[in-house]
Amino acid sequence: MYICLAKIPELIMAQSIGIPSGTRDFSPIEMARRNYIFSTIRSIFGQFGFQQIETPSMEYLSTLMGKYGDEGDKLLFKILNSGDAFSKLTAEDLQSTNAATKLTCEKGLRYDLTVPFARYVVQHQSEISFPFKRYQIQAVWRADRPQKGRYREFYQCDADIVGSTSLLNEAELIKMIDRVFSALNVRVCIKLNNRKILAGISEYIGYPQALTSITVAIDKIDKIGLEKVCQELEANGIDQEAIQKLQPILQLSGDNAQKLDQLETVLRSSEIGLLGIRELRQILQYQSALDIQSELELDLALARGLSYYTGAIIEVKAKDVQIGSISGGGRYDDLTGIFGLKNVSGVGISFGADRIYDVLLQLNAFPASTQTSTQLLFANFGDQEVQFILPIVNRLRAKGMSVEIYPDSAKMKKQFDYANRRQIPWMGIIGESEMENNSVALKNMVTGEQKIYNIDQIETVLNP
Amino acid sequence: MYICLAKIPELIMAQSIGIPSGTRDFSPIEMARRNYIFSTIRSIFGQFGFQQIETPSMEYLSTLMGKYGDEGDKLLFKILNSGDAFSKLTAEDLQSTNAATKLTCEKGLRYDLTVPFARYVVQHQSEISFPFKRYQIQAVWRADRPQKGRYREFYQCDADIVGSTSLLNEAELIKMIDRVFSALNVRVCIKLNNRKILAGISEYIGYPQALTSITVAIDKIDKIGLEKVCQELEANGIDQEAIQKLQPILQLSGDNAQKLDQLETVLRSSEIGLLGIRELRQILQYQSALDIQSELELDLALARGLSYYTGAIIEVKAKDVQIGSISGGGRYDDLTGIFGLKNVSGVGISFGADRIYDVLLQLNAFPASTQTSTQLLFANFGDQEVQFILPIVNRLRAKGMSVEIYPDSAKMKKQFDYANRRQIPWMGIIGESEMENNSVALKNMVTGEQKIYNIDQIETVLNP
Repeated sequence: MYICLAKIPELIMAQSIGIPSGTRDFSPIEMARRNYIFSTIRSIFGQFGFQQIETPSMEYLSTLMGKYGDEGDKLLFKILNSGDAFSKLTAEDLQSTNAATKLTCEKGLRYDLTVPFARYVVQHQSEISFPFKRYQIQAVWRADRPQKGRYREFYQCDADIVGSTSLLNEAELIKMIDRVFSALNVRVCIKLNNRKILAGISEYIGYPQALTSITVAIDKIDKIGLEKVCQELEANGIDQEAIQKLQPILQLSGDNAQKLDQLETVLRSSEIGLLGIRELRQILQYQSALDIQSELELDLALARGLSYYTGAIIEVKAKDVQIGSISGGGRYDDLTGIFGLKNVSGVGISFGADRIYDVLLQLNAFPASTQTSTQLLFANFGDQEVQFILPIVNRLRAKGMSVEIYPDSAKMKKQFDYANRRQIPWMGIIGESEMENNSVALKNMVTGEQKIYNIDQIETVLNP
Repeated sequence: MYICLAKIPELIMAQSIGIPSGTRDFSPIEMARRNYIFSTIRSIFGQFGFQQIETPSMEYLSTLMGKYGDEGDKLLFKILNSGDAFSKLTAEDLQSTNAATKLTCEKGLRYDLTVPFARYVVQHQSEISFPFKRYQIQAVWRADRPQKGRYREFYQCDADIVGSTSLLNEAELIKMIDRVFSALNVRVCIKLNNRKILAGISEYIGYPQALTSITVAIDKIDKIGLEKVCQELEANGIDQEAIQKLQPILQLSGDNAQKLDQLETVLRSSEIGLLGIRELRQILQYQSALDIQSELELDLALARGLSYYTGAIIEVKAKDVQIGSISGGGRYDDLTGIFGLKNVSGVGISFGADRIYDVLLQLNAFPASTQTSTQLLFANFGDQEVQFILPIVNRLRAKGMSVEIYPDSAKMKKQFDYANRRQIPWMGIIGESEMENNSVALKNMVTGEQKIYNIDQIETVLNP
């Protein structure tokens, strides 16, 4: 390939001003929208008594490794040790990526908020008032292959209660999901299941030990249909009789109470299955007292990262936008066990900020306030006018308004262009005659209308 | 050394639940305090028309390296390439840390917010409406030796205006500092100088080329006194005559206007010095119109990271707490030049969140609202009461109140302990008789007083 020499500096520049793939810059409008989502969530978390914590971006690799499976370990971003990181490394170590990594990196970027939270609870157990209701909104990093909607740096937004086995916690979390999405004006369906019911079903069809492969197959019913699920089960060594027994369960119809009634008959000989049913009944009873607005559907095909969930599992789908789940969670009975603190049950939910962002964008549901920040821009005609305007700007800001004065006495067109591009709804024009009369010309940048007011009227005109 | 075998698992555990040195967990109370600082700053930034952006935590090392000096390059946290990071590495490369790093790491964690911001401006120049007023509140990482008050992960909080040379920007930033600290109830002295005046002084004493070493020495006057500064200047090859000429300038007295008048006489033959004086005069004139509350002092000994500042420099000290500068900034004429976009002048300030936190703590200036989140905790006597209470909880939350119900029907002592440890100011007690009368016993957890109210009175009692 032939590259024109004169183009090389340009090519170099282009490389040096990019950002790593899978990461993002957030522009002012994107930040305003993200802040709207986060502040809505944060305020509702607060109303439910959840308290915010933050953990460091980097954890010891010994804290992170082995918690997300082999695949997860590979997706951890590892940080090179400071100083002479390679001094301990021999040519032989270079043969094995794992060995070389261990000798050069002791820290990694967090992969989720759950493991660092478990570490936090164990490390600070003596300072914590249990039950501990915490939330955490922070970035996580995964060296996944970047693709549409999948990033290497993204935010998670988790709320958990640890140290209480009460099912009221599940009910409160579901109500919190309901509140968040109704505040965001997104209609959702909250799907509910229970890991114990899935265990009961496995028992009932005679394959208690195949719980994982059964649920992995069932989980796909929405995507591939019942027939293919049965084929997959057969391929996994589940016999025809068992598959025959499973099918009617997956096709249970009726409302949630009716489904639970039918299920109770089917699972009558499975202790764990009946326990799961009792748990769901209790949660639904709390729900009715909590007056939930969203659709709440018992979905026996809901499986969700079964590895550490042990009780209720929850998943949330937007009703008016085709997208994966936008929130989800469940009960886990032994999360802190990995760090040596046994018998601390927890239940939590997580909101997917990026997907919620996409949903709001598609529904055109971001409020107008996320499109503008500054309410009023004063034009700048020169120093004398600036001196006159500054105390006015001061007073308006002291009242909480967002006000700017264009910093240079540039051409009017340039100043108006700035207001338009920034979507500032009002311009204030004060020239010689306005100064004499203590007045201001206020131009509505949307309608184009312009009127003269007394200086003291500005606030009333802008916030009628 | 002899280690009891039975103790090994414990030792392993102790290691595995720590966090890397120089990083921190933030507890709920610390987060509430940090959020108070950030939301105060954020709201004032907004009133001045600054818009928030965010950049990725990781940048290409080619973006970061060479921007912070050799020492800075060493302090960058480097991220190991994903996949087989060591495959390109030979035994020979291991001889040189730099060579080995280059072959294994192409990304690093951001070191400050300034260089990523410059990169952002260049990369997004076509989408940006200049003058661009942006703020950014994000973590930065430095592999510094951790010590008291110095962390490896900490937040910076920067506001900059790029694309305008108007001195109104400097004045607005100073007013913004004034507003932030008066909102935080911290009395400050804002120190002001101008890089051009320092250049003028160097010219005047006959050492224009020694600007850096002169200002580095002058910068220490507060710490080591005038005499030692003169010794250092002499050691740096400044002759006695020049030092004699410099001394009266550093001892100029009077108010800011008087200092500038005297300085004007002294620097009358230095073009750049006079320009610096004119700039400061203009800024001070805007200031008087902006009605600044804090002390604003012209300090000719203020030097501040001269490397990229070219005009006004600003530094803020707390008046009632002995601590380094808590905010600072200045004018830079060519920050984006390093990424190929020339002639874009900017001016910015940065708030030191950790030091401001320490100042507020020492002054006991955090408002009471940062100590409590939940306003009311309902005691839990069992399922029947819970069913009765949930709709009440619902209604109070819908009004924006923070309300919890203890999740388990535990012993009352345990529930009261929880309220006390969480510093929840009110407990709501609803048992059988209260349910019958639609009433609630509200206990003020501070005074210990307890009274019966009608359910509808809760809001009025708690928010009188």
